[in-house]
Amino acid sequence: MTWLELGDDAPFDAWTLPYGVFSTAGEAPRVGVAVGSWVLDLAPLAGAELFAQPTLNPFLAAGRPAWDAVRGRLLELVTEEAHRTSVEPHLVPAADVRPHLPFEVADYVDFYASQTHAENVGRLFRPDNPALPAAWRHLPIGYHGRAGTVVVSGTPVVRPSGLRRGGGADAAPAFGPSLKLDIEAEAGFVVGTPSPLGSRVPVGAFEDHVFGMVLVNDWSARDIQSFEYVPLGPFLGKSFATSVSPWVVPLAALAHARVSPPPRSPEPAAYLADAEPWGLDVSLEVEWNGTVVSRPPVRELYWTAAQQLAHLTVNGASLRTGDLYASGTVSGPRPGGSGCFLELTWNGAEPITLADGSARAFLEDGDTVTIRATAPGPAGARLRLGEVTGTVHPTP
Amino acid sequence: MTWLELGDDAPFDAWTLPYGVFSTAGEAPRVGVAVGSWVLDLAPLAGAELFAQPTLNPFLAAGRPAWDAVRGRLLELVTEEAHRTSVEPHLVPAADVRPHLPFEVADYVDFYASQTHAENVGRLFRPDNPALPAAWRHLPIGYHGRAGTVVVSGTPVVRPSGLRRGGGADAAPAFGPSLKLDIEAEAGFVVGTPSPLGSRVPVGAFEDHVFGMVLVNDWSARDIQSFEYVPLGPFLGKSFATSVSPWVVPLAALAHARVSPPPRSPEPAAYLADAEPWGLDVSLEVEWNGTVVSRPPVRELYWTAAQQLAHLTVNGASLRTGDLYASGTVSGPRPGGSGCFLELTWNGAEPITLADGSARAFLEDGDTVTIRATAPGPAGARLRLGEVTGTVHPTP
Repeated sequence: MTWLELGDDAPFDAWTLPYGVFSTAGEAPRVGVAVGSWVLDLAPLAGAELFAQPTLNPFLAAGRPAWDAVRGRLLELVTEEAHRTSVEPHLVPAADVRPHLPFEVADYVDFYASQTHAENVGRLFRPDNPALPAAWRHLPIGYHGRAGTVVVSGTPVVRPSGLRRGGGADAAPAFGPSLKLDIEAEAGFVVGTPSPLGSRVPVGAFEDHVFGMVLVNDWSARDIQSFEYVPLGPFLGKSFATSVSPWVVPLAALAHARVSPPPRSPEPAAYLADAEPWGLDVSLEVEWNGTVVSRPPVRELYWTAAQQLAHLTVNGASLRTGDLYASGTVSGPRPGGSGCFLELTWNGAEPITLADGSARAFLEDGDTVTIRATAPGPAGARLRLGEVTGTVHPTP
Repeated sequence: MTWLELGDDAPFDAWTLPYGVFSTAGEAPRVGVAVGSWVLDLAPLAGAELFAQPTLNPFLAAGRPAWDAVRGRLLELVTEEAHRTSVEPHLVPAADVRPHLPFEVADYVDFYASQTHAENVGRLFRPDNPALPAAWRHLPIGYHGRAGTVVVSGTPVVRPSGLRRGGGADAAPAFGPSLKLDIEAEAGFVVGTPSPLGSRVPVGAFEDHVFGMVLVNDWSARDIQSFEYVPLGPFLGKSFATSVSPWVVPLAALAHARVSPPPRSPEPAAYLADAEPWGLDVSLEVEWNGTVVSRPPVRELYWTAAQQLAHLTVNGASLRTGDLYASGTVSGPRPGGSGCFLELTWNGAEPITLADGSARAFLEDGDTVTIRATAPGPAGARLRLGEVTGTVHPTP
């Protein structure tokens, strides 16, 4: 219960309390917490050292005890009427703020944790091979993406150019703007506490290192990707833009969303054994020019974020504050759960119709995609976890 | 001609003038220039704003005009006897300094530019397919590596653990320390001037954006890599450590090393057309426990660093100050030119014998690998371009 008047349409309730970086006209970017239709300016209430900052990184680096202490204090501030007079002056209408990239991205890793997605991509890209790569059930397959092109929700996405396969078996490749611009709806995880080179982070230490979750749209040019990706993986087909939601949802806010992950067979190696269930009952919703076209279920992912973190570091790779790693496209096994248009339209073979009657196979210039998410909260509530949006701009 | 007494064995002459970050006992890291057997402390001579800094990034961000002006001034200082009294107090014996990672790495990209290497790896990893990937002659294949584990020469390399293929066709994978720890001898390029998201850097703008070159050892665990890399590319097999030389050689120092790259067939796409020849006659030398085992020739690389930069940005990806991109393993077409042990020992099938009589297929704990480089300089001189070294430590 909160003394704030939130309304049913408020973007966030008084439990989620996600962190971001915002600015108002003429003022420097600083850390805020989104609640209702406001942004709570954190520095005056919780200290300038961590919060009068243009990124969350100092707070991320402060570690789990600091994260828990600040969240505990925030829950008091928004639930106890006695704090109303001290809090109200620092509530800025969300409509008046500009959100910024919430943290400086150190390294960006993208996984491939949806079995449905991996099988579908296998069928489409490698029809002569088994749908699932040989190692897929043994380890969370992943790769490094471009940290420097991670952008905040709302940043225009310029259609990338590149080489794609030419027509005919021996034809020269064709160069030009991508003809198969796609999205990937994903859940992303933000590392706060670093780990030293040469050490490992076990599955059970997930909560000590990971601060929270963002929504990710890993824009993908399928024609560029499918021409370039053998043998070193996706490169220019992905590196032009990756959008993230501006408000980082702390793990603590997802306590009621934790579920057991799907059964794994064969049993994974010991370093990947679940210490605690870190499946997450987060439901994504993909909206294309105003039409909801799919609802990808994060709970169906084969590998959890805790397992992905253990895998990422099992070779001794260090973590840095600001590392971002994402789930890979979230596609569920049932119809209506595709996290990318490659699957939704079966590589363009089965176009879909939007609410305005227009047909789509891949993204056209001017198209806007918004990914939202919800999850179970306390007392049966359904929490809103924010959104990530982007509009396609033509190649210059 | 310089007034410094360099001696024949000096690590650097008075022309190369590479930049790095160093510290002396009890003093903070700061920018220096290596000359002879000294390090020139740059802040007192060229300004604290750019050089009393723990990384080269502020100087890298200053751009080509600043790079040229400082180099011009340095050449005056070391060649004109009149400057001896003002310069000598700031020469620190190289033996007394500790080198640091010279720049904060933004994104790290590794290419695959040696045709010999790509063909050999194809034969070893994908014996049932054509040796060269389909796209290889059409574009510089590359991928993103882990920026957070780029370390300075001399940093211990802890043997990584991971999953590798098990024995027998249906066997479970095996977990443990890598049994096939390898090196990759590469040339790396350091970006100074950034470029905005949504724009391209043409081949001809290479010198405006790239500050200089480092030597790179991209340590690789071949058994981990070959199990994990389909379809998203190398991940844990590479992400545990990438060593770079501490002294960044400015492009201007390589003016006499520029050569025409090898002929390409088919003709690359227009965005990859050579504006100027950026082949580089840099000779690497790989020393394994004191035995020189190969001399990889950078001049044989199919794709130049200028083409790689144009490719990296053709999709609109932005550049940041501190971006590092490397050539990929430099392996020449003639015997004795292998840039990794996978090729040198043909995946362990043909072990080599070191000077102490011991045989090697891959790296053993305690082994040290040092990569050095030379290039043509002014007046027929052979420039030393520094070294990158590392010793393998056992898995904890």
